[in-house]
Amino acid sequence: MTSVITLLTDYGLEDGFVGSCHGVILGIAPQARIIDVCHLVPAGDIRRGAAILAQTLPYLPAGVHVGAVDPATAAARRSVVVQAGDRLFIGPDNGLLSWALMASGGARVAHEIANRELFLNAVSPAFPGRDIYAPIAARLYAGGRLSDVGPEIPLDRLLSLPAPTARLGEGAAEGEVLSLDRYGNVQLSVTAADLAAIGVQVGDTLAVSMGRRQITMPFRDTFAAVPPGTLVAFTDSAGRVTFAVRSGDCAERLGLPPGAHVRVARAAEV
Amino acid sequence: MTSVITLLTDYGLEDGFVGSCHGVILGIAPQARIIDVCHLVPAGDIRRGAAILAQTLPYLPAGVHVGAVDPATAAARRSVVVQAGDRLFIGPDNGLLSWALMASGGARVAHEIANRELFLNAVSPAFPGRDIYAPIAARLYAGGRLSDVGPEIPLDRLLSLPAPTARLGEGAAEGEVLSLDRYGNVQLSVTAADLAAIGVQVGDTLAVSMGRRQITMPFRDTFAAVPPGTLVAFTDSAGRVTFAVRSGDCAERLGLPPGAHVRVARAAEV
Amino acid sequence: MTSVITLLTDYGLEDGFVGSCHGVILGIAPQARIIDVCHLVPAGDIRRGAAILAQTLPYLPAGVHVGAVDPATAAARRSVVVQAGDRLFIGPDNGLLSWALMASGGARVAHEIANRELFLNAVSPAFPGRDIYAPIAARLYAGGRLSDVGPEIPLDRLLSLPAPTARLGEGAAEGEVLSLDRYGNVQLSVTAADLAAIGVQVGDTLAVSMGRRQITMPFRDTFAAVPPGTLVAFTDSAGRVTFAVRSGDCAERLGLPPGAHVRVARAAEV
Repeated sequence: MTSVITLLTDYGLEDGFVGSCHGVILGIAPQARIIDVCHLVPAGDIRRGAAILAQTLPYLPAGVHVGAVDPATAAARRSVVVQAGDRLFIGPDNGLLSWALMASGGARVAHEIANRELFLNAVSPAFPGRDIYAPIAARLYAGGRLSDVGPEIPLDRLLSLPAPTARLGEGAAEGEVLSLDRYGNVQLSVTAADLAAIGVQVGDTLAVSMGRRQITMPFRDTFAAVPPGTLVAFTDSAGRVTFAVRSGDCAERLGLPPGAHVRVARAAEV
Repeated sequence: MTSVITLLTDYGLEDGFVGSCHGVILGIAPQARIIDVCHLVPAGDIRRGAAILAQTLPYLPAGVHVGAVDPATAAARRSVVVQAGDRLFIGPDNGLLSWALMASGGARVAHEIANRELFLNAVSPAFPGRDIYAPIAARLYAGGRLSDVGPEIPLDRLLSLPAPTARLGEGAAEGEVLSLDRYGNVQLSVTAADLAAIGVQVGDTLAVSMGRRQITMPFRDTFAAVPPGTLVAFTDSAGRVTFAVRSGDCAERLGLPPGAHVRVARAAEV
Repeated sequence: MTSVITLLTDYGLEDGFVGSCHGVILGIAPQARIIDVCHLVPAGDIRRGAAILAQTLPYLPAGVHVGAVDPATAAARRSVVVQAGDRLFIGPDNGLLSWALMASGGARVAHEIANRELFLNAVSPAFPGRDIYAPIAARLYAGGRLSDVGPEIPLDRLLSLPAPTARLGEGAAEGEVLSLDRYGNVQLSVTAADLAAIGVQVGDTLAVSMGRRQITMPFRDTFAAVPPGTLVAFTDSAGRVTFAVRSGDCAERLGLPPGAHVRVARAAEV
């Protein structure tokens, strides 16, 4: 359960905060292997943090997984340690961890973080990642007991983010833009399985509605199946339908922000 | 003294320079644990580098701490290794290390870096971090002797940055903006102890003068004590008075750059 | 051969992709030491990726060196593992590795990556770095055999980038801008040896032609040899002639992009 400690925060890289977290962890557990999942989550963007954590998780060894994205309410929001599968998750109970918990088979045990003896001396409400989560992660990594963290809490009291929407209708799948990557690829909440359920297969042409706009694009195995500059839909490694422009920026081309509503169907034969 | 090697530079992450430093260190000391404190110090900004290093230091295990921020005068400026407490600091003698030395109880021994046998073969004046500090850090980490680095120099010859100003006057504390973080929080050189000394307590309202402007804001335990969008002052984990806007960007709202002069008093009862 | 695994990609740091690569590696080879050479290679910029890898290589311990920069043709382009000196390189056969291979004494053995049993289950054509190169790097690091990766291929079939141009003419050296660093220093493909060959020495004044423009600048040991704000040429740690503005941004001042043609000669005595 404790092969690595992973960190996901919105701390950015322009200060010493991430380095502080590493320092706190190595001060307690000098042998810990630390993986930086991402520290450039937009400040306070719980949904984006949850998506990155859940999407990265399948590639991470089981371990202690810290998430610290909490918009200005850290002092009010309780913090938790949650076990799911053979992983431990530490973070605010604000939904940040919820998709990762789901991806790990669901929460099995949850404890509220209440034992202040495990905190660093100087507890800053601004940086629970450094002052609370990092030292607790290091202690659990080093063999500390979950029950020492604080009282067990009912699993149904954990806050969950609403799952990204994806609905299947009359020959169409509706969903939202889940995330954009730096290549400008647009990942939908709609999965390849959703498309299969409405009878769409690789090789078909998609009819895509975004608000009032309607466009078509080929659904292919890979974006490399189309010429440079061409729109294409394919299934990404997370199983989600993704729009791309080969050698181009699809997000810019289509002007689709995260959360935008998208409807996908099979284009009528012409 | 040698549990970790930490790196703080203005090298940025868009080149291979930081990776080079890691490579040089691991080539000499394959077991070294390296913590990247920060590599996005604005190019040549000694004061900002000094602040980040000093503020991060309390969270770092004792070790060998490298700082490489040096505006275009690397060839002219001598480099030093300084012992303070149970830590070793390596960097240019330009003040970059001075606040960290102070935070470690003050310099105890200093040696000028003079032994070119410890340098990498290809010494580039542009990157002493990679070519001088990294190999020396690795050798000291691996048990090398401080005296091999070069001749001891008098401690009073080390260049110190002027400490951030903070003055106490008639019921008012004066200071400067010490740093901004990525949330737009504004950290002052004025400490909570300064405020206590002039009779200001948590729960009071502050009268803040910045140049010709005067505003008031509540002084609270935490920024979460005020509604979203509201200005608030609180004490950060370093003990310094910090201005924030809950769920907002205080630096932008107030237009306060680092170094700006600020005067804080207790607001008159209305 | 296997002291470290190094990673160079254009994945950026705003997602979990780099963390995924670390996770995949540590899942297979828990003891591996990983060095992040650079993850901010501009998306798909093979030439820039090749330059960073080759320039960083002399500072990296021998190991398994992964490069993942591949503009939108990953599915079509074969991937390779190439041995050079005591190093192994893994990446697309698109030239990305070619300058590093040259810097390592030239390729000695090359194998095409063909054994899909070594891939992660979920192979995404978008991220061969995570799904193909990372697991193979970890297996080779852990003692896996090169011959298990796939069939050996002739060395003369490996794609090489054209080397940066540098030509010597009548008392002049011609070349191109090889790269810019974040300080705005402009690195040429012309080397100090080239200048020596046309009779230019440190202390001379250079006549530099860039398109229709002609300027002069001093050729010195280091940029610190001139006053702040002044143009200067010096030899960088890679042995290449570099233009700089002390305490300023030379790339901005001269408006020289990578690839720009530059001609350097000794300025006539005035």
